[in-house]
Amino acid sequence: MRIGLLTGGGDCPGLNAVIAAAVKKGILHHGDQFVGFLEGWRGVLDNNTMPLTLETVDGIITKGGTILRTSRTNVRKIEGGLEKCKENIKANQLDALIAIGGDDTQSVTNALTAIGVPGVGVPKTIDNDLNGTDVCFGFDTAVSIATEAIDRLHTTAEAHNRVIVCEVMGRDAGWIALTAGVAGNAHVVLVPEKPIDLNHVCALLKYNHDHGKKYGIVVVAEGAKLPDSGEQAIKGTKVDSFGHARLSGIAELLANKIEEQTGYETRSVNLGHTQRGGTPTAFDRMLATRYGLAALDLVHAGQFGRLVVLRGTEIQSITLAEAISKNRTVDDHFLEILTGLEPAV
Amino acid sequence: MRIGLLTGGGDCPGLNAVIAAAVKKGILHHGDQFVGFLEGWRGVLDNNTMPLTLETVDGIITKGGTILRTSRTNVRKIEGGLEKCKENIKANQLDALIAIGGDDTQSVTNALTAIGVPGVGVPKTIDNDLNGTDVCFGFDTAVSIATEAIDRLHTTAEAHNRVIVCEVMGRDAGWIALTAGVAGNAHVVLVPEKPIDLNHVCALLKYNHDHGKKYGIVVVAEGAKLPDSGEQAIKGTKVDSFGHARLSGIAELLANKIEEQTGYETRSVNLGHTQRGGTPTAFDRMLATRYGLAALDLVHAGQFGRLVVLRGTEIQSITLAEAISKNRTVDDHFLEILTGLEPAV
Amino acid sequence: MRIGLLTGGGDCPGLNAVIAAAVKKGILHHGDQFVGFLEGWRGVLDNNTMPLTLETVDGIITKGGTILRTSRTNVRKIEGGLEKCKENIKANQLDALIAIGGDDTQSVTNALTAIGVPGVGVPKTIDNDLNGTDVCFGFDTAVSIATEAIDRLHTTAEAHNRVIVCEVMGRDAGWIALTAGVAGNAHVVLVPEKPIDLNHVCALLKYNHDHGKKYGIVVVAEGAKLPDSGEQAIKGTKVDSFGHARLSGIAELLANKIEEQTGYETRSVNLGHTQRGGTPTAFDRMLATRYGLAALDLVHAGQFGRLVVLRGTEIQSITLAEAISKNRTVDDHFLEILTGLEPAV
Amino acid sequence: MRIGLLTGGGDCPGLNAVIAAAVKKGILHHGDQFVGFLEGWRGVLDNNTMPLTLETVDGIITKGGTILRTSRTNVRKIEGGLEKCKENIKANQLDALIAIGGDDTQSVTNALTAIGVPGVGVPKTIDNDLNGTDVCFGFDTAVSIATEAIDRLHTTAEAHNRVIVCEVMGRDAGWIALTAGVAGNAHVVLVPEKPIDLNHVCALLKYNHDHGKKYGIVVVAEGAKLPDSGEQAIKGTKVDSFGHARLSGIAELLANKIEEQTGYETRSVNLGHTQRGGTPTAFDRMLATRYGLAALDLVHAGQFGRLVVLRGTEIQSITLAEAISKNRTVDDHFLEILTGLEPAV
Repeated sequence: MRIGLLTGGGDCPGLNAVIAAAVKKGILHHGDQFVGFLEGWRGVLDNNTMPLTLETVDGIITKGGTILRTSRTNVRKIEGGLEKCKENIKANQLDALIAIGGDDTQSVTNALTAIGVPGVGVPKTIDNDLNGTDVCFGFDTAVSIATEAIDRLHTTAEAHNRVIVCEVMGRDAGWIALTAGVAGNAHVVLVPEKPIDLNHVCALLKYNHDHGKKYGIVVVAEGAKLPDSGEQAIKGTKVDSFGHARLSGIAELLANKIEEQTGYETRSVNLGHTQRGGTPTAFDRMLATRYGLAALDLVHAGQFGRLVVLRGTEIQSITLAEAISKNRTVDDHFLEILTGLEPAV
Repeated sequence: MRIGLLTGGGDCPGLNAVIAAAVKKGILHHGDQFVGFLEGWRGVLDNNTMPLTLETVDGIITKGGTILRTSRTNVRKIEGGLEKCKENIKANQLDALIAIGGDDTQSVTNALTAIGVPGVGVPKTIDNDLNGTDVCFGFDTAVSIATEAIDRLHTTAEAHNRVIVCEVMGRDAGWIALTAGVAGNAHVVLVPEKPIDLNHVCALLKYNHDHGKKYGIVVVAEGAKLPDSGEQAIKGTKVDSFGHARLSGIAELLANKIEEQTGYETRSVNLGHTQRGGTPTAFDRMLATRYGLAALDLVHAGQFGRLVVLRGTEIQSITLAEAISKNRTVDDHFLEILTGLEPAV
Repeated sequence: MRIGLLTGGGDCPGLNAVIAAAVKKGILHHGDQFVGFLEGWRGVLDNNTMPLTLETVDGIITKGGTILRTSRTNVRKIEGGLEKCKENIKANQLDALIAIGGDDTQSVTNALTAIGVPGVGVPKTIDNDLNGTDVCFGFDTAVSIATEAIDRLHTTAEAHNRVIVCEVMGRDAGWIALTAGVAGNAHVVLVPEKPIDLNHVCALLKYNHDHGKKYGIVVVAEGAKLPDSGEQAIKGTKVDSFGHARLSGIAELLANKIEEQTGYETRSVNLGHTQRGGTPTAFDRMLATRYGLAALDLVHAGQFGRLVVLRGTEIQSITLAEAISKNRTVDDHFLEILTGLEPAV
Repeated sequence: MRIGLLTGGGDCPGLNAVIAAAVKKGILHHGDQFVGFLEGWRGVLDNNTMPLTLETVDGIITKGGTILRTSRTNVRKIEGGLEKCKENIKANQLDALIAIGGDDTQSVTNALTAIGVPGVGVPKTIDNDLNGTDVCFGFDTAVSIATEAIDRLHTTAEAHNRVIVCEVMGRDAGWIALTAGVAGNAHVVLVPEKPIDLNHVCALLKYNHDHGKKYGIVVVAEGAKLPDSGEQAIKGTKVDSFGHARLSGIAELLANKIEEQTGYETRSVNLGHTQRGGTPTAFDRMLATRYGLAALDLVHAGQFGRLVVLRGTEIQSITLAEAISKNRTVDDHFLEILTGLEPAV
């Protein structure tokens, strides 16, 4: 078979592992040929491609980013975009297309499948909020980087009797903040799913202060909001190419308010883009590899319009429609982890 | 309530996170008191204890090992051992006991529960082979350490056109070798579940050599065996205090055979104890924390004789009897990951 | 002898290693007793102390921060401060004082020595700009953290064809930017010692762009300045307790200007406090240990008013006066490293 | 100019950084052309080359190993070897040759220079024992890896009340053992420069045991020897292609003897090849870059027969003859660091 591959949306450690696994199994066991579209759907629109061979994918499992590069071009918003894509896929004589990406990317895969392009999806979201899978690759790497940073912040905060507010990724879902916050032993963890209660935050910090811990670590997801955050909105208007207000400034805003209310010296840090780059963790490399192999298997089984997912220890698949129907956010059940570890103030 | 805690068997990154989570939630939300038994069941036998308070558990989530230390004392093999344990648990006025450990440890928890000691288990096995749970804490850390080491071996092997055989943990189950081998992009991965086929190993290395890759990385679980491994048996007689032949020498043995058969310069390295120490990964910290919280919840719900487990994204529980009934090993389904990535030689 | 110890100024990975080394050698080989003053000179002023024993310093070599905590209290600016310090040092029956800190801290050590307090200094500056020593501990750790972050930024920048501007520490001296920039293979490195030439920055990025590298990494020291940086001044007015405008905003400012001038999508990230916390590198642990041992030796040799320094492979000492006379900045000789690696545009 | 480059001897993190720096400066600022000889002097003998361009060296600074690969072929031991090399260097129309390697490699560079080949040397020895330079690249990376492993061993040793003996590189010089041992807070550090005193080793471990530390970490250089080590000699006969008995087995031998004499459960681990692979530390990247730039400068200054070295903060050069005249070993002055931190038993 001739198979197309692309990566869309924000980059994520593990993208290259998916590509490598699919290409290896396809070439070594099925004699497949692979065409990589460059920069997401934009590459399909423009028929901008590179060949994918055993040599091209050799050793890329350890590399962050994506050798196919990526973009946020959404062909559904372009007049005649889907048809143009279908045409170019046909022009490349492709029997199937594997699209690695999040909501936006997969909504296009789904739409293309509906008009006869045999597509298979691989889920990708560093925020881990895609519906239908236990976990997405890239998330574990982001959490690891954030946790290591938080570990470091403890010692400097303690040496100076300071509060440090650390902003991590998570626009709509707080999985990174939750996991890195718990793993990093933060004193306060704030997620987008729940409005920030500044009094509660300060009460938690004060409890620690009164019990001998003169410093504090607050982990906040970029998407967490103060109830009346006019200021945040203004700061947050800088929108990146994905429509994300990635530099929301919530950490800086919150640090000022905490210092004001508690009198404790407070600083902020925003981990920003360092969370999404670099070599993937072993967990993400394995998960991404399994996704790549499973996507290739779906293609050869002729099961199109589906997305590979992790359920427990198994790779399964669901329909693309189900995957993009809603986001998976941090529910009360997971928030109980936080309350279990906090004093009741 | 007054609750006892112990850690038994080999140490594992994440033990301290379990302890910290249970103690924090118990003290902060239930007013519980905690007694830590030192060095596993030996501490129960000898009534050797330390108090566990918010101060004792502060910050230990980031530390490997266990503040309660551990041993492999199996009280079931000691005349009157179980009764003596029951007596000391009573003498400490404990309402429940949380035992963190593997097969051996939990078989004692189970036996004690049968004679009226209200026990709850938390699974621990760095080899990840305990039945009934998707994954055990410590495993992810071990895999991360092994993968990082394998990443390093690639560059030195390539610089010298060498084969390097890297031995990782895994006495009966090959989960670490499988995961670190795939994540570390090894050319050959060998697990205890399948006898080593030396001809196949050499054929894989030769395939790479003939296709431009003049070096090779072989990852082998310590428990993997050559079909006629008289030599290995002799080397493997060194048994540690857990009855494990941890230094099995399979890597060294295999390296000699590969060099002999292929003529490629071959070296070996055994990662040994470096795999089980040190700060846990974020994944293991979170999982261990959730286990600790859930064990405490079981205690307060009066659900004894049970073991907390991970199923998908949820923490659930199963009976101790089910958990210790058999091991979870790498099955054909998982071995297909390896064959999918290998050339068919 | 009875010896006092304190840590002053911003914290630095390695402070604990200095303390541990001095205390170990003093107790084990000289029968010394140690008193730790808490939070820098403030602890001397307020006679706020903790005992330092073999137990207190056990294992602290691996920990960032300082078990003595720190502050920026400058007793020379406090009426009667020096005399009060002298009095409290006498009240503790101390035969000598070892002060670990930078310019500000050592100017007090020097002033106290002048009025009869037998003081010895250990240099500390994460920016590595103290005069008279080849290198200060903490610097290598900061550079390592920054380099690892820059490594990560490469892959995400490349995946998106973006420029990323990464701000690192370095208020007056660009050693961290220079070293992490070169080690991190940045395309542009900017230091405080040289006004930023925006046209040159954009020309370098354009050169790469025209030669196939569609992304760019710019490393900028927090203290680097655009020639007419009115905006930066406004942003930089937030002053921390050390009088440092740590969040100078130069990365954000520069990113906007680069995007404006080149049309390349540009993002910024400020590594901030993550650079100064956490476990020290092996290099910093060894250097700090040697400083601690040498400071103790100076005390026992009765050589007061001196600062231990590294010269080549040797630990030597200079007068405190010489150390605080001026800063060591990046000179033309070191800037040639940058120009050697850059295209001549 | 047309310049040849080669890497000889054991690989070392940082080799690629030297290559990249020399090639970049040469091409960008002098219009030089570069020829890389593959696999050390063997590539010169066989005229086996690859072109070195800006593309070939792009991004290799972060990679361990060497893109030119390496070997231990010593052309001085081959009849007519030197003349053949001279001939091939001439055939490639080279104006100069930069050889990166240790004693053996540089003795050839020196011999070739004597017969009219304009050669410049860059020092490389992971053991850090080359005469005339403060430090060699690769050493810091090896020490970092070893220290991280030792950090991990502490927790597992402590959890089990065990002694763990950790073997690190260092055939004739104990720099890695000394530095990683001190940085890793080992209780005993053993170097090749001093015969192992088993009674002293056991006395140190017993002292700790009697003072509440029930575990012990011993770091031993592979080349350290027991006074009557007949057993070690037998085990150590396995000689690698560099003539090194890299798997000396001293850790295993010593562990047995310690357990025998103290009764403490003792284990061993040999870090082996993991120490020399993988991405170099920031320190090594910077040092190697500076060496590469300086070597290129020597070539353009026509200063042949010289080796670049680090002295304090400066890169200087010495004659090749001086460099290869003797090894730099750990002297009494450095051993005092160890005795300063140990109890006097």
